[in-house]
This record gives sequence, C-alpha cells and structure tokens, in this order.
Amino acid sequence: MIYLDNAATTAPAPQALERAVREYREYYFNPSARYGGGFAVQKMIGEARKQLLSAVADPTAFELIFTSCGTEADNQAVFSVARRWNAVTSAGEHAAVERSFTELKNRGVEPRFAPLEADGRVNIDALLDLVDEKTTLVSVVHVNNETGAINDIAEIARRVKRKNPRTVFHSDGVQAYGKLPFRLPREVDLYSISAHKIGGLKGVGGLVKRKGLVLAPFINGGGQEGGLRSGTENVLGILDFAYAAAERFPRIAENYERIGALRKRMWERLRAEEYFYRISAENGSAYILTVSVPGARGEVLQRMLFDRGVCVGTGSACSSKNRFSRVIAACGYGEDVLDGVLRISFSPENTEEEILQAADAIVAVVKEFKGKV
Amino acid sequence: MIYLDNAATTAPAPQALERAVREYREYYFNPSARYGGGFAVQKMIGEARKQLLSAVADPTAFELIFTSCGTEADNQAVFSVARRWNAVTSAGEHAAVERSFTELKNRGVEPRFAPLEADGRVNIDALLDLVDEKTTLVSVVHVNNETGAINDIAEIARRVKRKNPRTVFHSDGVQAYGKLPFRLPREVDLYSISAHKIGGLKGVGGLVKRKGLVLAPFINGGGQEGGLRSGTENVLGILDFAYAAAERFPRIAENYERIGALRKRMWERLRAEEYFYRISAENGSAYILTVSVPGARGEVLQRMLFDRGVCVGTGSACSSKNRFSRVIAACGYGEDVLDGVLRISFSPENTEEEILQAADAIVAVVKEFKGKV
Repeated sequence: MIYLDNAATTAPAPQALERAVREYREYYFNPSARYGGGFAVQKMIGEARKQLLSAVADPTAFELIFTSCGTEADNQAVFSVARRWNAVTSAGEHAAVERSFTELKNRGVEPRFAPLEADGRVNIDALLDLVDEKTTLVSVVHVNNETGAINDIAEIARRVKRKNPRTVFHSDGVQAYGKLPFRLPREVDLYSISAHKIGGLKGVGGLVKRKGLVLAPFINGGGQEGGLRSGTENVLGILDFAYAAAERFPRIAENYERIGALRKRMWERLRAEEYFYRISAENGSAYILTVSVPGARGEVLQRMLFDRGVCVGTGSACSSKNRFSRVIAACGYGEDVLDGVLRISFSPENTEEEILQAADAIVAVVKEFKGKV
Repeated sequence: MIYLDNAATTAPAPQALERAVREYREYYFNPSARYGGGFAVQKMIGEARKQLLSAVADPTAFELIFTSCGTEADNQAVFSVARRWNAVTSAGEHAAVERSFTELKNRGVEPRFAPLEADGRVNIDALLDLVDEKTTLVSVVHVNNETGAINDIAEIARRVKRKNPRTVFHSDGVQAYGKLPFRLPREVDLYSISAHKIGGLKGVGGLVKRKGLVLAPFINGGGQEGGLRSGTENVLGILDFAYAAAERFPRIAENYERIGALRKRMWERLRAEEYFYRISAENGSAYILTVSVPGARGEVLQRMLFDRGVCVGTGSACSSKNRFSRVIAACGYGEDVLDGVLRISFSPENTEEEILQAADAIVAVVKEFKGKV
C-alpha cells in the first residue's frame, strides 16, 4: 500500500505508539488523583505539553490547551471569542471553522467570509475590508487542507491588528504543525493543532493560546486544562502526540525540502501527460499536491487507485458528503475541474520509489478511465 | 500495587488494548475517506457502536453518539436540551453536570438543584416539586460517583414525564455502564457513558440518545456522528472501548455479585475497628464503598496508603481542588466526617486477597495517623 492521503490522516508512528502504550499500561492513574501515581501522570502530561508547545511557539508567551481534536480546538476558538458583533474568516476554511462561523448566525453574531485567490489563499485586501471596529475575531487557516496554499498568517494578523487592535486572531494550523518550518508570531492569539496529521492518534488536538487572552470554558466539569477544557485527559493520546512530534520536529526543515522534491517528481511525471491540471501553487505546502483531471470523477479515480494499492484524497475527507469541494469551488473553478480533483498528500515516510510508482498508477488509472487503454 | 480507585479511572484491559492497537496499526485510514480503507474503518466503528449500545439499550429505540469523554457527553446533553426556561438536577451530580447547570444561568436558563438523602440519592419528592410546565431538562446521575448511591432513574424519569411529558430526561451513567446489571428504560432520553471507567482508554465516551429526540450539534465541522459531534473519530479509543466492554458485559451480573462480596469483606474488616463511619448505603453500587475516618484527613491517609502500595480515592478525583466534597457535604455531613472521606472503588480484577491486604493497610494507616502505633 502506497499511502498518499496524509492530509486526511496518517499512519501511527510505530515507535511513538509502542512507547506511549507501554508507559500508559503502567501510568494509567487519573491525572487529578492526589497521590504519587496521579502526580506522575500529571507530570508526564506537563512535559508533553511543554514539548509540543515549544516546538511551535515561545512558551513564555503562549500556552497549550489539550483538546480532543483539531475540530474541537477550532470550535473553542470561534465560540469563546466571537460572542457578539461580527467575525471574519475566509472561504477556504476547514469545515470545523466554516460550520462554526455559520452557526454564529444563530447566536446573534454576523459571520463574514473573504474570497480566495485561485490557489486557495485568502484575498488579503478583501479580508481586511471586512474587518471593522466591531470585529471580535478573524480566523484564517494557515495551510489550506485542500490545496496546500499557505496563508501568511503573520502578515495577515499584523494587518488585522493595525486595523483593529482588539480583534483576536485565530488560525487553524492543523496542516502546518509539524510540517511547515514555522514559529508562531506574537500577533497570532490562537492556533489549532492536531495529532493524527503527524503520526499521532485520532482523538487528540490542542489549542495554542496567547497568555493573558481570556477564553470561556468550552467543556464544563472537573476543571482540567486550567478550567478551559474539563474531562479526564486523554493520557495515552497526549503522550503519543508528544512522541510522534518528537520524531518530526528535529527534521522539520529537512523533511520539508525532501518532500518538496518528491512533490516535484510527482508533478513532473503527471504533467508529461495531457490529462492533469495543477491546482496547488508552486509556493504551497510541500505536503500537498492537488490536481484535477477535467472530465473525470475524482472519487472514481480514487477507488480505482485504492484497488491498485495507492491511497489518495479527493476533496477534504471531512466534508466528503458533498459532490464538489466548497473550498476548491471558492478558488473559482468550474464543474469540469471540480469533478476531477485528486489530492495527493505526503508524509516523511514516503520514498521516491513509492512516488514514482504512484505517479505511474495515477496515469494508468486516468488512461483506463478515459478509455485510452 | 493494589488499585482501589477504579471509580476515578481503571487500568486498561490488556487484551483489549493489544487488539485495538494491532488493528489500528493496519486500519488507520480516515473513517470519512471514500475508498476501501475508509469504508473498512467506518464499518469497524459501526460494529463497536452497535455492540456498546446493545449492551445497555434496545438499539431499535436508541442510538449512540461517540464523544471524547463522559464530561463532553454530559455537556452536550445539558446545553443541547436546556435552551430556555428552567432545568432541574440533583445536588449529587458529577462536576460535568453540576458546572454545566451553573453555566446555564449565563445563558438565561434557571438551574434548579434538588437535595440529597444521607446516602447520596436524590430526594425524589423534592426533585419532582422543582419540575413544572417550563422544565426543559431533568438530569439525575445513575450511580453517584462519590458514594455509590443508586438513583432509580427509571422510576424518576417516569414520574418526571407524568408531571411534564415534554421534559427531556438525562442521566450520567458513567459509574453504572458496564457495572450495574441494567437496561435503559424508554423514559430515559439521554444517557452518558465513558470508556476509562471499565478498562477502556481515557479520551472516549458516548451519549446514548433516544431515537427521534432532536439535539443541536455540540461540535461543528465535518458532520461526523450524524452531524452531532464533528471531528475525526477516535478510532483506536472506540475499538478499545468495544473490546473492553466485551470483556465486562457477559459477566456483568456475576461480577456485580462477586464485587458485592468483596465490598462486604472490606467493610467487615473496617467496622471491626472503632475509626470508620460508613457513608455508602448497603443498597448502593457494589463497586463503591465510601467511608470516613472522623478526625483524620482523607488526603493524608490516601498518600500514606499509596506509599504502602494501596490506591484509594477521597472525594471525586475530578474536583479534588476543593477541600471538601460538595456532594458528600450535600448528604448532610459536618466537617469532621467530610475531612476524613475515603472512597474505595473496585474492579472485576480485584481479588479477595488484595481486599484483605488493603483493609489491613487501611486500618494500619489510620492507627498510625491516630498515633495508636
């Protein structure tokens, strides 16, 4: 199996999982228990928290709240901050942000959506036009999960704050964390991350939060996570997240470069044929190559590829119940392109041999679909 | 280590965890992915869901929403249903329900708290007095997590519905599911469960929901869990939950009886000394024996016991930041009793030998504390 759907989810990093399970079998105590076993688990969580936070942000300026997934982190950011007036986001957000913004209407907050460029980046001028003195929140995805387009969130956050210094800036960093060599600038107040996109387990995520920013609790109860997210901590998932991240971060720049080269090889092979239209921009994330085969059905190609042992994505796996990708439609493409979208997404485990084999399989499947073989 | 803090959390069932990890290593696909791998994982989740639901309820009348923990399930029940007028609960709830009810005030809903009996059961007549034509929700914990008192939720739900048929009835079943031989009656609309209290992992829970009851989504996004709980499913946790439950449910009645006998042995040993006051009622859950050593500090005894290799609880581990247990205080006890609370909570893995050893250790530690040795 050649797995190229890593933007949807990743295979668990084997050593990280083995280590986390081994430790959890011994340290299964409730982290809130006030005896040695509980204290030990609390300390292990604290170390994981520090490591996962420091990997992306200055721990003297930011803190990390563990959540059950990136989607929960996005929901917490939106609903804790956007409590009145208006909130601004892009048309290129993951469903977790997009659906939360839509729900804001029911809560008396006006959601505003800024248009996209053709590659999936937000149109910054149009976004800034939507920001006014009553904008409580701006949320812009860091790496677009469908096209890999990178929004310059440092620059966008700076310009938003210049226009309204009281506006809170959030970014969904799920497709960037552990992949893009990047440090969180001070202008970003909230940043969502997820474990299972970088070799961790499904069921764990986090919300990086600027210290001093006051949030309302999202889940009420025993007061875990500084009172902001109650519920017994997902100890195994948190430990595994830290161990998986520890395998990624020391090589983040090296991985990025190597995967960029793989992406280039893949595209060189595809563009040698007449069938492929490239949606991902050259300067997008190295981890995502989104193309379209106009006139073909992406889902059909995807299943034909699975039968040949190659996994790729189409639109976002999370919103796969609609025919077209809302985000790629917002890039301005017509039905012909939208129908044929394939998202090829990489991981540091991919080899060049796999990429070349997969490219051949993709070409073969498209030819089969088009009746050319 | 003799572990008698199973109401706080349990050690992971080893075979269930091993099996879930082994399967997850192969079936790591995103359950929303629309190719063979995704379909296979979706099917595995469906089988786990069916099994976990059928174990406690009629699957033609109820459905199960997976959540990230019991606390989230409680929050979803409260905030999805209690959207106006008033909502009624007991003074004996877990913090997940109690804090959510307190938060209702900020959302324009009046929370009403019914008093407890001395053993921790809710005073049913007082609860019913609080229910009126504007009561949207009644929430009563099934097994009190601090005393083990069992509320007859079938009877309470029936009487609530007789008074106001439109009132939705929720129960936190976290300390009952997989322990108490019990089937959900039709009068109960919502029922929270948790994996890590019965040998599953922390980070997984569920909300059993009567079919036809309309809930608002609690977390917005990709539309997982029938749109009610978005976010990529915790696949490993869900599989492990099902396998852990499969080890418990076939022996649920037999376990209950055996643990009842262990609880009896424990109390026989303790009551032979002058130090112990029993809080748990005879007819409470076999899984919990809560006692007090008036004049002693429960937390100090707890740590002394940990040093001797015995884990017990004091109040709820989840709300351990307060000196006194809010719930046991609501049972009507004074500071002397409240200070000395120990919660001894069992699992089917406990042996008679462990219980007798632990009882000796508890007696020894109390004597040491009292300066009697």
